[in-house]
Amino acid sequence: MATATRRKKTTKKTRTPKMTYCWGASKTEGDATKKELLGGKGANLAEMTSIGLPVPPGFTIPTTICEAYYDQGARMPKGLGEATAKAICRVERETGKIFGSSSNPLLVSVRSGAAVSMPGMMDTVLNLGLTDAAVQGLIKLTGNARFAWDAYRRLINMFGDVVMGMEHEDFEDEFDLVKKKFGVELDTELSAEGLEEVCNRYKKAYKKHVGSAFPQDPYKQLSLSIEAVFKSWNTHRAKSYRQINGIVGLKGTAVNVQAMVFGNMGTDSGTGVAFTRNPSTGEDKFFGEFLIDAQGEDVVAGIRTPKPVSEMPKWNNRIFKELLKNKKTLENHYRDIQDIEFTIERGKLWMLQTRSGKRTAAASVKIAVDMVKSRHINKDEALLRIPAGDLVQLLLPSFTSKSKNKVTTLAKGLPASPGAATGTLSFTAEDAVKRSEAGESVLLVRKETSPEDIDGMHHAVGILTSTGGMTSHAAVVARGWGKCCVAGVSSLHINAARKTATIDGKTFGEKDILSIDGGTGEVMLGEVERHEPTLSGDFETIMKWADKRRRMKVRTNADSPQDAKRARSFGAEGIGLTRTEHMFFEGDRILAMRQMILASTVENREKALARLLPYQTKDFTGIFTAMKGLPVTVRLLDPPLHEFLPHDTSGQKDVAHALGIKLAQVKLRVEQLHEFNPMLGHRGCRLAITYPEILVMQVTAIVKAMIACKKKKIDARPEIMIPLVGTVEELSQLRVLTEETIKAVKKKAKYTGKLNIPIGTMIEIPRAAVVAEQIAEVADFFSFGTNDLTQLTYGYSRDDINSFLPHYLDAAILERDPFQTIDFDGVGSLVAMGCQGGRKAKPKLKIGICGEHGGDPISVGFCDTVGLDYVSCSPFRVPTARLAAAQATIRA
Amino acid sequence: MATATRRKKTTKKTRTPKMTYCWGASKTEGDATKKELLGGKGANLAEMTSIGLPVPPGFTIPTTICEAYYDQGARMPKGLGEATAKAICRVERETGKIFGSSSNPLLVSVRSGAAVSMPGMMDTVLNLGLTDAAVQGLIKLTGNARFAWDAYRRLINMFGDVVMGMEHEDFEDEFDLVKKKFGVELDTELSAEGLEEVCNRYKKAYKKHVGSAFPQDPYKQLSLSIEAVFKSWNTHRAKSYRQINGIVGLKGTAVNVQAMVFGNMGTDSGTGVAFTRNPSTGEDKFFGEFLIDAQGEDVVAGIRTPKPVSEMPKWNNRIFKELLKNKKTLENHYRDIQDIEFTIERGKLWMLQTRSGKRTAAASVKIAVDMVKSRHINKDEALLRIPAGDLVQLLLPSFTSKSKNKVTTLAKGLPASPGAATGTLSFTAEDAVKRSEAGESVLLVRKETSPEDIDGMHHAVGILTSTGGMTSHAAVVARGWGKCCVAGVSSLHINAARKTATIDGKTFGEKDILSIDGGTGEVMLGEVERHEPTLSGDFETIMKWADKRRRMKVRTNADSPQDAKRARSFGAEGIGLTRTEHMFFEGDRILAMRQMILASTVENREKALARLLPYQTKDFTGIFTAMKGLPVTVRLLDPPLHEFLPHDTSGQKDVAHALGIKLAQVKLRVEQLHEFNPMLGHRGCRLAITYPEILVMQVTAIVKAMIACKKKKIDARPEIMIPLVGTVEELSQLRVLTEETIKAVKKKAKYTGKLNIPIGTMIEIPRAAVVAEQIAEVADFFSFGTNDLTQLTYGYSRDDINSFLPHYLDAAILERDPFQTIDFDGVGSLVAMGCQGGRKAKPKLKIGICGEHGGDPISVGFCDTVGLDYVSCSPFRVPTARLAAAQATIRA
Repeated sequence: MATATRRKKTTKKTRTPKMTYCWGASKTEGDATKKELLGGKGANLAEMTSIGLPVPPGFTIPTTICEAYYDQGARMPKGLGEATAKAICRVERETGKIFGSSSNPLLVSVRSGAAVSMPGMMDTVLNLGLTDAAVQGLIKLTGNARFAWDAYRRLINMFGDVVMGMEHEDFEDEFDLVKKKFGVELDTELSAEGLEEVCNRYKKAYKKHVGSAFPQDPYKQLSLSIEAVFKSWNTHRAKSYRQINGIVGLKGTAVNVQAMVFGNMGTDSGTGVAFTRNPSTGEDKFFGEFLIDAQGEDVVAGIRTPKPVSEMPKWNNRIFKELLKNKKTLENHYRDIQDIEFTIERGKLWMLQTRSGKRTAAASVKIAVDMVKSRHINKDEALLRIPAGDLVQLLLPSFTSKSKNKVTTLAKGLPASPGAATGTLSFTAEDAVKRSEAGESVLLVRKETSPEDIDGMHHAVGILTSTGGMTSHAAVVARGWGKCCVAGVSSLHINAARKTATIDGKTFGEKDILSIDGGTGEVMLGEVERHEPTLSGDFETIMKWADKRRRMKVRTNADSPQDAKRARSFGAEGIGLTRTEHMFFEGDRILAMRQMILASTVENREKALARLLPYQTKDFTGIFTAMKGLPVTVRLLDPPLHEFLPHDTSGQKDVAHALGIKLAQVKLRVEQLHEFNPMLGHRGCRLAITYPEILVMQVTAIVKAMIACKKKKIDARPEIMIPLVGTVEELSQLRVLTEETIKAVKKKAKYTGKLNIPIGTMIEIPRAAVVAEQIAEVADFFSFGTNDLTQLTYGYSRDDINSFLPHYLDAAILERDPFQTIDFDGVGSLVAMGCQGGRKAKPKLKIGICGEHGGDPISVGFCDTVGLDYVSCSPFRVPTARLAAAQATIRA
Repeated sequence: MATATRRKKTTKKTRTPKMTYCWGASKTEGDATKKELLGGKGANLAEMTSIGLPVPPGFTIPTTICEAYYDQGARMPKGLGEATAKAICRVERETGKIFGSSSNPLLVSVRSGAAVSMPGMMDTVLNLGLTDAAVQGLIKLTGNARFAWDAYRRLINMFGDVVMGMEHEDFEDEFDLVKKKFGVELDTELSAEGLEEVCNRYKKAYKKHVGSAFPQDPYKQLSLSIEAVFKSWNTHRAKSYRQINGIVGLKGTAVNVQAMVFGNMGTDSGTGVAFTRNPSTGEDKFFGEFLIDAQGEDVVAGIRTPKPVSEMPKWNNRIFKELLKNKKTLENHYRDIQDIEFTIERGKLWMLQTRSGKRTAAASVKIAVDMVKSRHINKDEALLRIPAGDLVQLLLPSFTSKSKNKVTTLAKGLPASPGAATGTLSFTAEDAVKRSEAGESVLLVRKETSPEDIDGMHHAVGILTSTGGMTSHAAVVARGWGKCCVAGVSSLHINAARKTATIDGKTFGEKDILSIDGGTGEVMLGEVERHEPTLSGDFETIMKWADKRRRMKVRTNADSPQDAKRARSFGAEGIGLTRTEHMFFEGDRILAMRQMILASTVENREKALARLLPYQTKDFTGIFTAMKGLPVTVRLLDPPLHEFLPHDTSGQKDVAHALGIKLAQVKLRVEQLHEFNPMLGHRGCRLAITYPEILVMQVTAIVKAMIACKKKKIDARPEIMIPLVGTVEELSQLRVLTEETIKAVKKKAKYTGKLNIPIGTMIEIPRAAVVAEQIAEVADFFSFGTNDLTQLTYGYSRDDINSFLPHYLDAAILERDPFQTIDFDGVGSLVAMGCQGGRKAKPKLKIGICGEHGGDPISVGFCDTVGLDYVSCSPFRVPTARLAAAQATIRA
């Protein structure tokens, strides 16, 4: 409030700023650099005009006038009427038409246009300037009464709705009555006479709701529309959007007033949209569609089938050549693929819009490389042009859009892990294993997965869950494997006992086939055609450029030699996170693990751990070998022990039988281990403190594996990471135990070489970030575990967040899911605090991140800003992280 | 490490410091101000000598010598042998005895003594100086061979054990053999001859284990003992104790060498312990016990029954008068009640120790007030003398210690809520209600309580749980009511279905009687006599002094008019936290609440809420009335909705029946609401965002209640507190809704007066503390919810923490339970950050605390330091908080 008051005072002193900026053949006052003043749209229309393209003339009321409007207590600034009238005059001269004329009327569109586009701003009003008199002029001019009345009724509808705040239904009802009266079903079947009646009824409805007649003065229409644009700047939605997005310093919105052109004035007229290159492949070939005698919305609506631009020469070769020339002008000027709209009014080509074209990941890579080759842009610009997050599309299969259009989408969940998968439904992990081993492609369908399901998840072609968020167990594991996963499909109800899933009342069984799109979250009925990934030379080129540019290293999160190898092939420079818990679920190991958990004495626990030791040693040997020469950060056991025990009686019976103990014993232990909030429970280093023998076994395995590698001349570089540390004392005590264990294993193995094994910790508890300076004293490295850090900093359980997250995103309480993109203000502040604290104690402390954010481009940028040494992400996101890291360096 | 190195260098340059400080009749070199140099014990012995008390002479080797010992690589400093020999000479002159003499030997004790007492330091060695020759001297001197041999065998045992690190069993076994040989059972039955043989066997055992003979040179004994004291300074236990407690800057430990005196030299000898006042009531009356012809340990061991000091004149009136004189000297000097030890050796009184006497809460209050009256201390000193946390003892019943000694303690849990309760066992809340209404005193025995148990908890005389910590549901609710609760009794196994509880194999049913002590956590069998609380005038005096002195206000956490009234009588200056969730469990309300939760449309939810509105309005009217003129902070609904639904099928059936819906519907809703981590789930303001109608109902009730009060001229001052805010957007959106609701209710009630209702938030999510500056922009006040803030900052669930907390405390990973005393470094840093951020945005922002820490004296001190305006705590802790706040002001 204080700032606003201050601004008001200074503004009052200054003169009223320039009120209109025109563009047109005779004079253009703006250009693309004036976005803050003219808004993005206005600046771009002026720019296009300047470079010689045929743009319907018009003018922009700049953002400063909107500011003046609010400074003067939401009143239209003095002199604005006069200024707009003058600007209209210029447009009249350029077009040879007269605003409101009953013989040759000028029609204009009015659009909002701020420097940054935002929701809540006013929609377009078209055909402005039509009145009872002007409509007659339009009939005369076009000889097409139906066209004229249709244009008029559209104006009244849009004006009433957008400018005066009427309900769309107020008009809809009238239209229906007229259609009934004339006995037609479709809008297009209505005659000129019918449309005239619609206009009359619309005017009545307008008067009834607004309280005054529809304005017959075109300048009144214009003035009211301009004010409506100003007002839309301060709607609740626009304000909170700016607040949430930290958009400050903008003065207001601009207003664009532009002469209308019509592509539906006969067979010498037309309209079209095109890309200057193929947006799907990136190929340098003009690509678009057009319709003869049609309006822009007809192309979009899909009622008529447009023709490819390649067929345009047959219709009008002159126009086509002009269009090609314009295309070239635009690409040379904007140095990027452009998405353009054009209209031909009675043989005259008008360019209506140009903007940077949306493209596929493959196209963005090809276009960037091509543009460097043609010297349009340099390598840094090329790297910045590619959305880093899209690269994952190039590594995974996807559904072809053609095929997707043919199937029914049943539901939408969270796009938890990209890719495309089709299969029959499997409702338990065991079934998934059995059926997939029998050759079936199955989707594992679960409420939420747990570590017990690991084997089944591995065998399934895709994973579908009804609860759980973007960082739920299913999502994290699937992303690690590059396996398709759609999570949190709230309309999916699973009856695991009956082996059925229900979506919107439709029930699917084991034999039904579904397809899931992990990139969009779609769940589709039946099979959908897939496109398998291939990597182009351009991809390698971009990656090479990125690697040269980036400061941060990129590691991967991998738990197996296979994953490690794959990530290495994607460019990973080490492993930032090897989780050791999944290793305990395979085959016989789980039995030894359960025996350990059920042991009531240290001795028996040690016996069970001794059985696990050879497995762990083999696991680590494999991973170290796959990653030879590169660091491998091994996180010691993290999840609570109850995750390793079955929670159903039949599973418990099996355990009791296998271990030769009583069911009651198993049940008692499960009950003892039960936690109300497992996320905040007995896990992480808390396990190592209370059961040091688990740590001893794991460290022993790491050291034995390292020695085994060294003996084979394999350069193994393990780093030991102790999870969930919240106090320096936890780490210092466990560090001592770890060092003692390393020494003991070396001695027992009679290994005399040097073993350099850094010992560090995850910073994932808010307290650890706060007391990082203390912790760094006993840590060789930090790795931010931003998944848990986000959970604890917000107090959000990622497994439960779906009950309110969608609502939070809708209501703009959260801009983004904080589990996908790091929250700069909160979690990010703690990360920065942790870095500062850590480096205060140890200026050269190595710091990385191994949470899911390590593969999110925005978050990677943040990591660069706070000075992390590396990011670590799932294998398929490694190229994304490499590019994002390079982009961060360039931006810094 | 760096500090240690630096210190070493500077020390090397300085001269070796003075090596001994003596005390005795002829010369005393230390005093009580030299604690850092001489340790607490040494300084005090010198002080006592200085003020003319008869203290056996001796000397202190100061802490600087211990420092020199370590600086020189753990070697005995040069010249120390010579210096101690000289000091021994002085003691020889004072006592007329000779060290190691075979006719008149001087015996000494060696004790460690740092400036701060700490665990891990060396125990006492007594009778040092006895050798094969000296023991003969002692026999000659005392004419008591049994006494002499007994003293010698004790020396060998203590020296071997404490100085040379032998096991106590090494000696114990030898003793048993001799007893067998002489055919006796008790140690005391062994003759002089037998004890001589024990000495011989001890010496052999010593040689066997130590590798050299027991030293026959008394100076060798002394030197080894001194070095053992130095070494004990750096034991792991002592080091980590210092680290944990932040004890820095100490140079080392001092060593005290003092002439032995013996109270067991005949009927003219004796020993005793006494308090200068009654430590139980505070009455100014000499209070103690003595034994004729006995050693200090005999008084403690309880083998013989000592006599009260009042009987001493009958034995030796001269000594008694001297003792009374000494008592007065000590109290005048130390200006506090003293706990003294004395020995009479052959008619000569020796004072062995004096220290500030431990006392009950009642005594501490009376003594403080009395000492102000007698002008020994001023009011500030009086306030600082009383442990603020003990005041709660004065407000609640307690078991008499006599009666407690007679019963069997079955188990020990956490002292969750003080007080004393005896009752039969009730295993469900319903049973507790029924049976208590029938006149029975019942203890509610549950695994852990939940909000569903509220009614039963209220009716029970005490609460006993097998899981859950100091801030579990049971603990928090019980403390609020001043109801006795013992929580987390891990050896207690409850079978609620069978209505039995088992402790160590013993099973108790509904008819068994147990007693629980909420101040100690003890669970006892049968009935124990209770002492009902009475408040003295001295208590009121202290409270008055405290109120004058403190800066912070003290509020209470209260959910009902009764609690509010009680807290007000204890001095609460408002309510800092009214939880609204408990209100929904009584009688019919829970049905309306459940109807609301089970409603599938906003409309139906609103209907159910309309039924709850009159109840809530009545609740608030009652509380506002009880607190008229004082602020009442109402926290809007906080817990997740599933807490209000029954989780067992039979309860669900009842709900379905009562609401006329299908059981399946209830079950489905329970399933939908299930959360993996409810603490991190859909609760707090997240509920108000997704179900705004709940907030609207609660705010409506608050405003209606306020208007109702105003109409009756009752000065109601509600404040609305929105819980669990993590983002500014949550609070700003809910603030708008709250303000709109207030306006609407005012309008509907046609109330035209002014209603000033501040709207603020709890800061209990780490993110809220981090972004406090943003949040403060839309908050009228902050209240730190340090329970949840501690849970999230550490990642500890307070309901699950018992699985590792005891271990963490044992291993000194945590110094204290962070749910009881605020963690300064972590949680405290976030609180400080929240205060700074909040006050940056609004310099006068009112900030308080309403977590359990608000009633913990150390935490209250912290709150004062960071500048909070008030603390809020459960009613029975209000006096504690008032005193602690005053102490904080004085210390600041």
